[in-house]
This record gives sequence, C-alpha cells and structure tokens, in this order.
Amino acid sequence: MPIRNGAEYIQSLRGRNLRVYLFGELVKEPVDHPLIRPSINAVAETYDVANRDHEIASAESSISGIRVNRFLHIAENTMDLVNQNKMQRKLGQLTATCFQRCVGMDALNSLYSTTFEIDAKYSTPYHKRLVEFIKMLQKENFMIGGAMTDVKGDRSLSPSQQEDPDMFVHVVKRDENSIYITGAKAHQTGCINSHWIIIMPTMRLRPEDKEYAIVGAIPTDAKGITYIYGRQSCDTRSMEEGDLDAGNAKFSGQEAMIILDNVFIPNELIFMQGEVEFASMLVERFTCYHRRSYVCKTGLGDVLIGAAAAIADYNGVANASHIKDKLVEMTHLNETIFAAGIASSYQAHKTASGNYQNDDMLANVCKHNVTRFPYEISRLAQDIAGGLMVTMPSEKDFRSLETGPLLEKYLKGRKGVSTENRVRILRLIENMTLGRNAVGYLTESMHGAGSPQAQRIQIARQMQLEYKKRLAKNVANVIEGEANDLTQEQSEYFDRVFAT
Amino acid sequence: MPIRNGAEYIQSLRGRNLRVYLFGELVKEPVDHPLIRPSINAVAETYDVANRDHEIASAESSISGIRVNRFLHIAENTMDLVNQNKMQRKLGQLTATCFQRCVGMDALNSLYSTTFEIDAKYSTPYHKRLVEFIKMLQKENFMIGGAMTDVKGDRSLSPSQQEDPDMFVHVVKRDENSIYITGAKAHQTGCINSHWIIIMPTMRLRPEDKEYAIVGAIPTDAKGITYIYGRQSCDTRSMEEGDLDAGNAKFSGQEAMIILDNVFIPNELIFMQGEVEFASMLVERFTCYHRRSYVCKTGLGDVLIGAAAAIADYNGVANASHIKDKLVEMTHLNETIFAAGIASSYQAHKTASGNYQNDDMLANVCKHNVTRFPYEISRLAQDIAGGLMVTMPSEKDFRSLETGPLLEKYLKGRKGVSTENRVRILRLIENMTLGRNAVGYLTESMHGAGSPQAQRIQIARQMQLEYKKRLAKNVANVIEGEANDLTQEQSEYFDRVFAT
Amino acid sequence: MPIRNGAEYIQSLRGRNLRVYLFGELVKEPVDHPLIRPSINAVAETYDVANRDHEIASAESSISGIRVNRFLHIAENTMDLVNQNKMQRKLGQLTATCFQRCVGMDALNSLYSTTFEIDAKYSTPYHKRLVEFIKMLQKENFMIGGAMTDVKGDRSLSPSQQEDPDMFVHVVKRDENSIYITGAKAHQTGCINSHWIIIMPTMRLRPEDKEYAIVGAIPTDAKGITYIYGRQSCDTRSMEEGDLDAGNAKFSGQEAMIILDNVFIPNELIFMQGEVEFASMLVERFTCYHRRSYVCKTGLGDVLIGAAAAIADYNGVANASHIKDKLVEMTHLNETIFAAGIASSYQAHKTASGNYQNDDMLANVCKHNVTRFPYEISRLAQDIAGGLMVTMPSEKDFRSLETGPLLEKYLKGRKGVSTENRVRILRLIENMTLGRNAVGYLTESMHGAGSPQAQRIQIARQMQLEYKKRLAKNVANVIEGEANDLTQEQSEYFDRVFAT
Amino acid sequence: MPIRNGAEYIQSLRGRNLRVYLFGELVKEPVDHPLIRPSINAVAETYDVANRDHEIASAESSISGIRVNRFLHIAENTMDLVNQNKMQRKLGQLTATCFQRCVGMDALNSLYSTTFEIDAKYSTPYHKRLVEFIKMLQKENFMIGGAMTDVKGDRSLSPSQQEDPDMFVHVVKRDENSIYITGAKAHQTGCINSHWIIIMPTMRLRPEDKEYAIVGAIPTDAKGITYIYGRQSCDTRSMEEGDLDAGNAKFSGQEAMIILDNVFIPNELIFMQGEVEFASMLVERFTCYHRRSYVCKTGLGDVLIGAAAAIADYNGVANASHIKDKLVEMTHLNETIFAAGIASSYQAHKTASGNYQNDDMLANVCKHNVTRFPYEISRLAQDIAGGLMVTMPSEKDFRSLETGPLLEKYLKGRKGVSTENRVRILRLIENMTLGRNAVGYLTESMHGAGSPQAQRIQIARQMQLEYKKRLAKNVANVIEGEANDLTQEQSEYFDRVFAT
Repeated sequence: MPIRNGAEYIQSLRGRNLRVYLFGELVKEPVDHPLIRPSINAVAETYDVANRDHEIASAESSISGIRVNRFLHIAENTMDLVNQNKMQRKLGQLTATCFQRCVGMDALNSLYSTTFEIDAKYSTPYHKRLVEFIKMLQKENFMIGGAMTDVKGDRSLSPSQQEDPDMFVHVVKRDENSIYITGAKAHQTGCINSHWIIIMPTMRLRPEDKEYAIVGAIPTDAKGITYIYGRQSCDTRSMEEGDLDAGNAKFSGQEAMIILDNVFIPNELIFMQGEVEFASMLVERFTCYHRRSYVCKTGLGDVLIGAAAAIADYNGVANASHIKDKLVEMTHLNETIFAAGIASSYQAHKTASGNYQNDDMLANVCKHNVTRFPYEISRLAQDIAGGLMVTMPSEKDFRSLETGPLLEKYLKGRKGVSTENRVRILRLIENMTLGRNAVGYLTESMHGAGSPQAQRIQIARQMQLEYKKRLAKNVANVIEGEANDLTQEQSEYFDRVFAT
Repeated sequence: MPIRNGAEYIQSLRGRNLRVYLFGELVKEPVDHPLIRPSINAVAETYDVANRDHEIASAESSISGIRVNRFLHIAENTMDLVNQNKMQRKLGQLTATCFQRCVGMDALNSLYSTTFEIDAKYSTPYHKRLVEFIKMLQKENFMIGGAMTDVKGDRSLSPSQQEDPDMFVHVVKRDENSIYITGAKAHQTGCINSHWIIIMPTMRLRPEDKEYAIVGAIPTDAKGITYIYGRQSCDTRSMEEGDLDAGNAKFSGQEAMIILDNVFIPNELIFMQGEVEFASMLVERFTCYHRRSYVCKTGLGDVLIGAAAAIADYNGVANASHIKDKLVEMTHLNETIFAAGIASSYQAHKTASGNYQNDDMLANVCKHNVTRFPYEISRLAQDIAGGLMVTMPSEKDFRSLETGPLLEKYLKGRKGVSTENRVRILRLIENMTLGRNAVGYLTESMHGAGSPQAQRIQIARQMQLEYKKRLAKNVANVIEGEANDLTQEQSEYFDRVFAT
Repeated sequence: MPIRNGAEYIQSLRGRNLRVYLFGELVKEPVDHPLIRPSINAVAETYDVANRDHEIASAESSISGIRVNRFLHIAENTMDLVNQNKMQRKLGQLTATCFQRCVGMDALNSLYSTTFEIDAKYSTPYHKRLVEFIKMLQKENFMIGGAMTDVKGDRSLSPSQQEDPDMFVHVVKRDENSIYITGAKAHQTGCINSHWIIIMPTMRLRPEDKEYAIVGAIPTDAKGITYIYGRQSCDTRSMEEGDLDAGNAKFSGQEAMIILDNVFIPNELIFMQGEVEFASMLVERFTCYHRRSYVCKTGLGDVLIGAAAAIADYNGVANASHIKDKLVEMTHLNETIFAAGIASSYQAHKTASGNYQNDDMLANVCKHNVTRFPYEISRLAQDIAGGLMVTMPSEKDFRSLETGPLLEKYLKGRKGVSTENRVRILRLIENMTLGRNAVGYLTESMHGAGSPQAQRIQIARQMQLEYKKRLAKNVANVIEGEANDLTQEQSEYFDRVFAT
Repeated sequence: MPIRNGAEYIQSLRGRNLRVYLFGELVKEPVDHPLIRPSINAVAETYDVANRDHEIASAESSISGIRVNRFLHIAENTMDLVNQNKMQRKLGQLTATCFQRCVGMDALNSLYSTTFEIDAKYSTPYHKRLVEFIKMLQKENFMIGGAMTDVKGDRSLSPSQQEDPDMFVHVVKRDENSIYITGAKAHQTGCINSHWIIIMPTMRLRPEDKEYAIVGAIPTDAKGITYIYGRQSCDTRSMEEGDLDAGNAKFSGQEAMIILDNVFIPNELIFMQGEVEFASMLVERFTCYHRRSYVCKTGLGDVLIGAAAAIADYNGVANASHIKDKLVEMTHLNETIFAAGIASSYQAHKTASGNYQNDDMLANVCKHNVTRFPYEISRLAQDIAGGLMVTMPSEKDFRSLETGPLLEKYLKGRKGVSTENRVRILRLIENMTLGRNAVGYLTESMHGAGSPQAQRIQIARQMQLEYKKRLAKNVANVIEGEANDLTQEQSEYFDRVFAT
C-alpha cells in the first residue's frame, strides 16, 4: 500500500536499522532523534502538501497511469516544470527550510532523457529499466534521493588518476547479474530520509574512467552503507528543552556523508555502466533542472520578509519610510530570483525521450542570483530585526521564576505585543540568517547545484559572443570580409529566445 | 494601400507639414533632417522586421482578420505577450536604440480592456469605437504613438487645482460631435514619426478633474499641434560629415514635447470622456504592459556586450580572465532583466474584454532592474573599452592627409585589426554609454514607464506583507487570536504565483 | 597593586559574587563557565597586548603621569586617536572577536569633554570628579564598561512619558550624598568582564526628562544589579568536549542585559545629574568616537581573509583566478573600512576640555560601510570555503574509532594537508560567518554604535546641501539674488575638510 | 617675471605656434578656440586658487626658498600630501572637471625620489638636474604636464619587440650633449595647456629596452611635436551660441595625443637614460601618488550632489524621503572615496631623498572605489533629475520668439523657480553624467592612473596573505611545523598600518 500522507511517511522510516553516526555514536532510531527529526518533518510536509494542494504538488503520470506526487513525476510538458517551481516556492513558504526532495525529482528527470539517448546509441536497456523503477516509486509513493557529489580527493586529478581509487564511487566487483560499488558521496541532502538513493557520477569522465561511469539505485538501508551526519549551526538547540530558541523548531534540512563499502546493485537497477561520454550529459541536464529548483529559496525569502515585517510591527516602526523601503528591496530581490526560475521553466524544450528540459542559461542566471540575493535579504532582515536578535537570553531565562518577570517587564515592545511572540520572531530571523536554516538559506544557496563559478562557466558557454559581436559590428558599420549575416548566427540560447 | 515595408513607411511621413521646431527653427521636412532621420530609420526597422521575422513580429488579428504588425496587435493569448518581448529584444539587437513603437502597442492593449470595462459600467460606446480605430490602423499598417506624460506644473496640486489649467491636457471646448483639447505632453517618444497619437491621462484623477479624464486619437498632423524636438547627448554628430563619430549613424531614439492648442477630436475617436475613476485603471494597465516592454533593453545590452567583446578582441586581451569575467557578469545582468520580463508575460491573465494582461509584480521587478543593470553593464563596457574611447580624435583627423597617417600608425591594435574598425567599435560604446543612445539605454531606462520610486510603490502594493507575516508566524509558532490560516490569505500576486 | 597582565586580570574577576543568570540559573563563577570564559579571554588579550605592543596599546597619561593601557587613556592629540584604531585592528587580528573595551574608552573620552562643558555652564564639579575617577582606573588598570542603551519600551514615547517609568534608567531616590537608580540596559558588551560600569543616557532628552539625565559610575558587583546573559549562535559548542567544532575556542564576545534595582551612586561618582541639554552632546560625541572604533572589524576581516586563503590553499585552488580575485575584493572592502576609520581619527580637532575628538562625518561613513562590507566579505569567504563548511560531521565523529578513519580517508584535501587542519579552518569560517563570532562580525557590525539608519541621519545632518547647491549653481551659472559666495558657506564638515 | 594669476597664465599660452590638430585642421590659436578654451580656464583656476586659498594651494618650498603653487611643490612632510588632497577637492568643487595639473605634480614628486636613488646607485647627476629644473619651474610658476602612456601597439610584446619601434617613445639619435626622441603618448591630459612636458616610460622595462628607459623635459612648443586633440562627448556644444546647453560652459578637461618626431632634449633636462630597472620604481611611485590624487573626483561629486539637491528643490520634491535618502547615499559614497585618499596621504613615509610618499595600498583602494562610486552617484543624480534632463529642447528654442514662451509656460517647476535656472541645473547634470565632463567624472575615473585591474594587481601584491593565513591559523589553533609567530610576519603594508 502506498504512503498516503506525512504521518505514514514518518512511520515508513522506522525500524530500518540504518547505520547512522552522529556525535561519534550510532543513532538508534533517527526518526526519534530530536536533532534529526525536524529534517524528517520537512519531508513529511511534501507528502501532505500533495494532498492539500493537489494541482500544484501532484500530477497524472502517463508512466503509472495514476496521480502521483509531483516529486516523482516526469515532466510531460512545460507546465509540469512551471508547477515544480510553484510547488517549490509553496514548500519553502511552509517549512522555511530545505525539504530535500528536489534532488531526486531532478535526477529522475535528467536520467529519463539521458538513458533514452544512451539506449539509442548502444541499444542498452537502461531507459526501460528506469521507467519500471519510476513506476514502482510512483505506486509506493517513495521518497528518493540523488547522490552525485563525490569527495574528489586531489582536484587536479581525474577519478582514475587518484592515489586512492575510492575518491570517486566506482565498481569494485562485478558478476553476471550485479555489481558492487565503493566510495563516498558528500553533502547528501535528505539521504537518511529517503527510501531509495540513486548513485550518479559527479562530472565529465574520460575513457579511462569507465568504472566510474555508473548510475544505479540502492535502497537506503542497503548493506555496506554508513551515514555520518553533518553538523549545522545551532543544531543542538533542537535537543534542548522547549521550542523557542530553535527559532523554527519543526523544520530543518539535513546533510550527511554517505560511505559505500561494497554495496550491491542488481542489473535491473543499473541505468548506466561505462558509457563515459554520457556522464557530462547527465550532469549538465541534472544541474540545469536543479539550478532552477532553487526557486524554493523564494519561499524561504517570503518567510524571512514576513518575519522582518512582523518584527517591525512588534517594534512599532512598521511605518518608518526606511523600513518599508527595505521590505520593498527584499521583495524585489526575492521576486527577481523567482522570475528567472519560472522563465527558465517556461522556456523549456522537449527532449528526444519526450520529457521536458528547462532553459539552461536562465537556470544558471536564476541560481547565480541565488548565490547573492539571499545574503542581501538576510542582511536587510538583520537590519530591521535590531540587535536584540543576538543578545536575547535563552528560553530558560524567560521561563525562570527569577528572570522571567524581569525579562517580561523589560523586553516589552509596543503595547499589545506579547514578549514571547516578539522573541519567537527574532529567533526565527536568527534561525534563517545565522542558525540552523541559514545553512539552507545561505550556504546551500551558495554551493548547492554548483558554486557560483560553475554558473559563470555555464553562462560563458552559452553567451554567444560571436553572435553579439556581429550585432555590434552591424550597428557600428564594421565591414570585415563577408557581410554580417545576423540570421545565420543564432544558436543554442538565442535559438530558444527567438523560438516561436 | 497599406504600408508594406520600411521604405514605404519613410515615404509615408513626407509632406505632412508638421510644425516641428528644432534649434529654434521650423524644420522643413523632418524625414530629411540629418538629426531626426536616425529616429525614423529605427521605426522603419519595425516594419522590415515584420517581413523578415514573421512569427515574432506579426500576428493574425481576430479584429481585422488579417496578419498585422505585432505592434498593432491586441494580445489574444499569453504567447502574444511573450512574443512581444521576443520582438522587442530582436529590435533592440538590430537598432541598439529605442525604436519607439512600444508605447502605442501598450496603449492600445490597455485601452482595449479599460474601454470594455467603462462601457460595462456606463453603457458607453468606447470599446466599439476603439475596435474600429484599431481595425483601421491594422489595415493601413500605421505607426501609432501614445501620449501620456503631462508637464504637471506644481506637483503638489491636482490637475484642476493648478494655477494654469493647461498643466494637464484637458477639454477646452465641446459640441455635439466633437471636443477640443489644450495642454502639453512631455518626453514624447516617436511622436513625430507616428501617423496617429492617442492622448491619455497621466495619473489617478478625482471627480473634480472630469475635464482631464479624456482619451482620444488625433492624427499627427492635426491642426493646433506644435512639436519641440528634444536635445540628446552628442545629437549634432548626426549633422557632421561622415558616419564614424556618431557611433551608430543609422539609428537613434526621439523625444519631443507636444503642445496642443485647441486640437479637435471627433466623437468617434474619443475613448474616454469624464469617467475619472477609470483613469487609474488605464494608467496601471498601461504601465504594467510597458514596464515589461523594457525587455527591449536586453537587445541593446546584447549589442553592448558584443561591442565590449569585439574591442577586447581588437585589443588582444580577449582571453584575459578578468575580461571574460566581466563579459559573463554583463550577460548575467542582461539575462536577469530578460527573465523577469518574459516571466511577467508568461504569468499573464485574461481580462474581462478577452485580451491578456501580464503580471504586474514581475513587470515592476523587470523595470526596476532596468533602472540599475544597464548602468552597471555600461560601466563594465567602459572598463573593457579602455580610455581611448573618450580621447580619440575626430573622424576628420582620421581622414586628414596630415594626421590620418599618424593616427593609422599610432592607434594600431593587435595585428590584422583595422584602426578604423577599432575606432568604430569604440565610438559605438561611447554612443551607448555617453552619447546619443545612452539617452535610451540609460536615462530612459531610468525614467521611462515610471521612475524607480514608481516601481517601488507598485511592488509595495503587491508584496502582501500580511500573508508573509502569517507565513513567518506559522513557522515560528506564534499564536495570535485565531489560527494562522494560510490558505485564505493569498491574493493578487500570490494568487497568480500559485494559479494552476 | 595594579593589574599587570591578562592572567592577573582574569584572577581579578574571581569571587565577586555577581548575580549572573544563564540558561535560567545563577552562574557560580563566571570565570570558570566554559560558555563565558572565551569572552574573558578576549579582554585578557587587551592587557597582554599592552605589554607586547607598547607603542600601540599603551600611552603616557598626563592625568596620572604614568604609562597606562590605551583603553584608559584620554586622547591628548590626534595620534592618540589614530593609535586607538591601530590597537583595535591588532586586537581584532589576534582575537577574531569583539574584545569589549572600546565602549569604556569611548565613554571616558566623550565624558571628558562633555563634563568640562557642563561645568563651564553650571559651575558643577563633574569634570574634576571624572578626572579623579580616571586617575584611579589608570592606577589600578581596571576594565571599564559603558552602559548606554536603555530598553526603551514604546519607541514613540519619551522616557518620562512611558507607562512604566523604568523603561529608561532613572533616579528613584536621592539624598544629600548619593542617588539610587533603577532601570535596565540592553545589549551590554563586556559588562560582566568589567570592574566598573558607567551609566549614561541613551538619547536626546527634554526638560521633563530630568530624572533620566544621569551619568554615574558603579562597581560591577554593586548591590541591586542582575545580569542576564545573552545567547549567541552556536554558543553551547563552547560547552562541548574538544576545541574543534567551536572554530575559535579561545575567544568570543559577550552581551548581557543589566537590570538595575535601586543601585546606589555616591555624589563623587556622579558626572551628570539633570543637565538634560547635555545628554545629546554626550551621545553624539560617544557615537562619533565609537563609530570609528569599528575599525576593529578590519582585524577580524584580516583573519577571515586569511582563513579563506588558507582553505583555498588546502583545497588546492589557491591559484585559480576567480579565487584570487575574490581575495582581492575582500581585501579592498576591508581596507575601505580601515581608511575611513583612520581618516576620521586623523581629521580630529581639539575640544574645549583639551582632549581630541575625531571627525564625525567620516566616523559615520566608516560605520556605515561596516554595516555592509563584512556581510559581503563573509559571503565571499563562504564562496571560497565550499559547502563542506556546513556539512562536516562533529569533532566526536573525527575522534571516533568507527568513523574517524573513514573521515580521514574521505575528507583529504590536496596532498600534505592534514584533514584536521582543513576542518579547523572551515570551522573558523563557520564561526565568523554563521557561528558565535558572526554575532560580533556581522550583527554587531550592523547595530553596534547605532543601526544603519542612525548613520544616515547623522550623514544627512552634515552633508551641507546648501553649500553644495551653491557649488552647482556657481558652475551652472545660475544667478539667484545675491552672488554665489562660496567662501562664506563652508561650515562644520567642510570646515574640517579644508582646515590647514 | 613669474605668472601671477589665471589671467596671466592664459596670456602666457598665446602665440606659441603649437602644431595642434582638431577636426582635421590646424588650430590657429588654441587659447581662442571655443572648444579648447574651457580646458584652459580650468587650469587658470589652479593659479587663482593659490592666491585665494593660500594655505591649501601654495607652500614654502625649500628648493627655491619661496612660496610656490602647490602643484609645483615637492612634498616635504605628510601634511603636504594631505593638503594636496584638500586642494584637489577644492578645485573639483570650483571647476567640476579635470583641472589637469595633478599629473605634473605627481611626476615631479616621484622623479624626485627616483632620481635620488638612481644617482645613489650609478653616481649619475639626475637628481641635481631635476632640482634645478624644479627651481626654474617654481620661479616662473609654470604649468607642467607629465607624459607617460605610450600607444603600446601589440600588448603582448615588449617595447623592443614591437614590429614598429615607435610604439613606445625611444631615443633615435644621440650626441654628446643631447638626445632626440620619437614616439607617441596617448590620452595626454592638459598637454597643450602646459609650458613643459616631462616624458617618462610607461611600464616595467627589461635590459633590452634600454633606449626606452628615458625621462626628460621638453617645452610644449618644441620642434617636432604634433598634438591631435581628442573628442569628448558633446564637445561641440562649446562652439554653439549661448552658454546654456553646455551645462558647464566655463570649464572642461582636455586630452590629446602627442606625437614626437625627433624631438631634441639637452643633457641637463634628461633625468633617466637607460637605467631600465628604475622604470618600474618610477611608474609605481607615480601611480601611488596619482591614484590618491583622484580625491579630486569628490569635489566633482560635491557639485553633482549639489546639482541633484538643487533640482529636487526646483521640482518641489526636496522633502520626499526617497530623495533625501538618495542624497545621503551619494554623500556616503563620495566621502568613502575621500576618506581613502586622505588616509593614504596621512599614512605617508619619508623616502631616501627626503620627500614623502603616500601609502600604496590605500591609494589603490581609493582609486578602485573611484572606478565604481562616481558611476553610482551619477545614476542616482539621473534618478533625482528626472527624464527632462535628456528630452529638453535646445537653448535656441528657449530663446526663440515662437517656442520660448511655450516652453516658459509648460516647463515651469514649483512656484518661484525660474525655468532657465531649472534648465541650467539639468544641463549641468547632463554635462557631468553624459556630456563633456562625464569624460572626466566617469571614464577618466575608470582608466586614469590605471584601469581597475591595475589596482587589483597592486592590491594583490600587498595583501600579505601569508601573514593573514597565519592570523587565521593562530585563532583556529592550527599547528603546522614551527609556531605561528605573528610578530615576524608583518611587512610592507601592515608595517605601515602598525607603525607608531
């Protein structure tokens, strides 16, 4: 029976005997660990929203023939991509954190088209296998993670050149029906919260890297996997009594390192094996989807703008012109991100396999703004919040019989505002700009789906300087050899810009 | 017979006996005036592009039943709006200046829906009249201008409160079949190049401003109109011999002041008369279309990026990492503008009249970025260009037998590059960042369709702080009175964000 | 016997029976509390540096006739102010946090000149008392804190208008020889680490606020004082085993709320009482000194730039052009802050009392840049750091026999780099951009010595628009009434700019 | 008899028979050419200000023993450098353009110390010759220009590698008593307005570039020199009737190309000849002085801020909060530039020759901000100005009997403001942001004294990453080999930062 809602999803994670380390110790049951649980709650919300916001967060799949969670849906048209963005913003608004499901969605979609093209070249059976796998995921309504980032060792060497061959995940054993892989994947979002994980290569590969050109699905509780949980700023506040100091007690992101030691994958779950030249296609399509998926951060931005507006109101300065102006600026930046994300989705094109791929230039532009604007929005939120945000006493001081009344007396804002509510909003701003969810709102915005320089490289690849130089020479009346034929020179990005 | 191309358009402007003043004197034939002609050439290009780029720059109109220039087309669906943006970028690429037709297009579209709603309330015949007028324009393939900005006098007073009643255009005489209007419109783009001009109010009006609530069409050569041509930076270079120092000798924008003295409008060309409460609807819908029309500036940006890339190439520094990085930054900013523009078009909705209106928040975000990024793109272009851009001698010095050979010897760039071509590209960069077309690329980007503060006010109106505060309180677990019902609170902008 | 070094300073704090609350409980001995201790270490460094860097961090005082810690020195010439900045940068470099002594230094200096001017008007004995107090501080080598920021209650009401009179510190009892005060001071830097605290009003006062116009010194352990310790991001990491996860285990800042309940001040320690019109002079002179004291943040910036350079080196990307370029940008921003700070000190003038006051405009410019650039420097540091900074496991995982070897294997950087050292540098970057010292480097940079809007108001007051308008009219040949006499119009800021 | 004031200076330029080309023709008398004259007026102001503002703009020289114009003064102490900055700002305020004398001042000062060090090494007589030359300049009160920038040809080749040896100025003939040089210097500020020009190499030279390592003085009217005048945006407005459209009719900058054909220099005017290794010292010291000399732009900034404030006042919006906020931002940016400039001067050190050299890091920081902030100040000025700035008719239209009254009626601002004065201020803003003086305020701010990348290279050289890495490792408790000895590692920049 499929998972029907967030509660059932949480239940489904129990008792899996994952080997998860946190603070140097094995975690008995991650679902019940107070530091881990908020990250599970965030995923649970992706199940519940599919029930509540049917149109946005679910879709009819022509693969399984049923209505499925949109995170498991293969985009069958442009609007499917646009609706992904809408769902991402909505979930950002509801959780104010990373809800950890975009990687899986974007991995399935990029594999869908890539396996199709591998098969076309090599008559391999990957696409059909993948479709079967997706069908199963949709029917069970599983959560899936995508594992791409290898630990990389010495960055100047290719996978097969590394002193230690395990610096990139690779095949260590192989028989007729299966393979075994070893290596590690770093910064893995939501992995412990998933039912399945798809292993993928992290970059362009060369012929000698054949054993590293591997894509396959493994259950999260497969034998040979060790998870080491990452620390986040202020993470242990989730383990303290009370819910006030956490700022956002219910929701958080999750990153862990996955260490794979001789992990088994049967043939029917292998979707690439040795076709090195398709590694870069897969990576590029995945990052193209994923850089636009950072539209989620505009949902977080909405919450942070709301928190700034709320604290301005509590402080009695909501009508100060400079406060209003800062809220407008925050909104302007937030919507600039959103615009590029949905523009990328709207400018999608159909792949050979039949699913839809969003525009690459605009996806990179979207993500590149995400590496800048959330930092400025946070700065402005801290400006509006005032210094109290970082000098307030702990919840225990507020609850104490000794200090509680003193704080109640002295931390009053304008009339009619509860001191506790004022503190709650300030703690939320701290949570998003310095604390636990600053990891997701800021640092992940910087490095997730590729660091800023990765976007600049991709923008450079598509900026079509030859075409633009021709435009300039045309206007400046520069004659060099043959005439400036402008109609011939569009390609790639501008082809899509001017497509009708 | 309709105008079929740019050449015929130019021909159609001859012999109209317009009363145009420039440098204190009447201009005999604007078409032949070297300072004015480049602005006419830019409009001519809008005719030719409709022939060349059929899909982008023309459309089947259900009003006239024929294929029409898109600038005369009423948007019948979302893609019509998106295609407007594509046409705007294309023309920006081809002319590197303001081609002056967006005002008319946006005026017709905003009037289309506004007149429909006036009629619905007052049973007036405006919409039908407008449709007839549009049908005529489409059949003749006329160029139309929209005149909105009044001179305003004392900005703290409303139209009817001004000491001099003519500070806003108003009805001065009226009979059964017609009205007569007086006043002046400032900063009028492309007015002299138009066949018809639509007069519209410039802002929200009050009941006592009835005589100012007037919309009507007048032929450009109507009796009682005086045009005073505006100066642009470096405008007289168009009157010098040669084409080099102008930078962009063929194309420029045009702004003039229109002074109306008892100008006649027959009833069938009146589309609003006294319905003061609809003035703000018209203005808002017009600016909503028009702020997104500034996507045209990304076409200019493409040219300027191309010019910067070309000069870097000529200077032999195209591969310097800081040069490449600046070109990437220019592209990133340029595409950020584009993204918001087309996102606004894609997020359009249908009006009561049946035509389509783009998203207002994203249109304002687009325009607001236009008031910033072209300045930074220009700064980077000047950085790449080098100082020679503003210290080069005149074309006459290059052509002189005395100094020409010296300049040829000493201003050589890298081998194989013609000194003249190097100068041409530098003059183009000067043209776009300091000279004649800097007016269009920079100052008009700042103030056209409303100055930055106007966008901030509009963003403020739609930023839905109450909804966002509720989002923050939901996450921060702030309880105030009834529960935080998030589903109820979306409206306006977020309604469209989450529409499916 | 005076305190001679950091160790003796730490010793001097023991056994004072302060009433300090933290996590709802009384702290037995703050010196030994692991969460508090790093803030004491930072102050101790201010004692040690005076021994090591004699010229910078100490000075001959003409008050006591001995060489004193510069934090207790009254500036007797311009170079004394410049040397304050040098000392601040040095201590920022050594501690990478707020070392908490500038408030006291700036308070003593602003009181020095203000009391002199009060006495001149009212023949009061404040200045002489203050000099005696300073002499004692210098001889004992005490640490002094300045308490200015009241909790303020409803910000639209003045002190005497508040519903609860205690929202601002005020006199509640008075006899011939002393007064008693009640109220609370928020965000108090280094208060628990001080031997004495000077209470000062927080803003311009009106005649009816007489009881609030009070300046006086109290020992930190005076009867009636309660301290409630403020939480900082990641503060409890200081309480965990090990020193790795803290990032900067040795040093931190400190902020607490001071609650005063009928605290006694004898007449000889009162430096203002009721002279309401001097409150604003005191506040303005204090903030003028203090906004320039934020030069300390350039010392923190040096550390963060160093950390970014170190991690780039460890990651093997130190020579990538975009990395180098980001380090240059960070340096440029950091030195821009420094320049404005020392420029303000260099442009000092002598007060009536004989001490020196730095330039106000440039102090505000310095601080205003401090509310912006550290955020951008942090963003760039996070960019260079890479995502591992926020996804690394805990120190316990590195020390664990199970996971330690796995992490050692998989988190190797380039050859020859110790994994632990790589982690240490990443944790330092986390500490300064999200963690404990981000409070000092970012949020305190925003709000300390006044929030951004406070600087803008002060810049506005001194920007001399009338003089500048006259400059413009002179050049533009605008004649209005009498001639544009430029020599007469300089005042205030420009007087100092052009002083010789 | 020395030149005593601006009028005598102008007189001194007459009748020199310079070979100046402009628009392809020889200029008869540059002093009387309306396009050239404003640049001469700007220099004249440097003479008059020395009389009016004695302390700032003149100094007692220990070389000639008399009081001399500060532009001819060798800095004998730190305050001499600070006063240079004050003079530069003052002249910027008075002329709103480039007054063209800083190059000469900075050239003399850098030659002063460099020749001293050449002599010390080679026992050459350069320093003594230079002192004699300076003495003569001071006694006659001459204007001196410095010519550094060669045309450079192929930038990937050194001077001696160029196909055409004249791409860098070099010795072509030599006898016992003199040399003859050939080549060209580009972008020469104020050369035609000078009495003498000093020729200097433009970059680091290698042993094989010996003939290019030449420094010498030549009279402006020397045989063999051709000047080709550079075009500026809107330059011909200076040749139109009236003074209104020019915006700043009285003052402008000047750039020309100097072509040297066998120009004679006698031995006593040669200050370097073949000592290739000193070329880079000279260039570095010159740019160090000169990058800080861009403080002049803050004087232009004052005028532009004043113009923006004036037009806001004329438009009746001076009290709008967003207008005031923009004026504050403009001021903040302007003073940030000023602060770095004077900080660089204040942090000067004495050279071996005895004169003073300002701090290099801070000079580069100053100039680097100059490549950014004037662009933003201009953008904000255009924002405040409104669109009329680029759409206003010409002066002739205002003076015409036909159109004048119409414009007077319709371009009225708020009551009491003359339309002409409103236009004058708008034309001044146009002049400084797009027109003639935008060349000086923007493009020269970008490229003068080195383009942005040149500053970044220089900042990179001095940013002392090794020292900063050590600071970070010290705080992070990173142990690598020997201890982190912080005291040893300061050098260069930080030596000066912490000097006492």
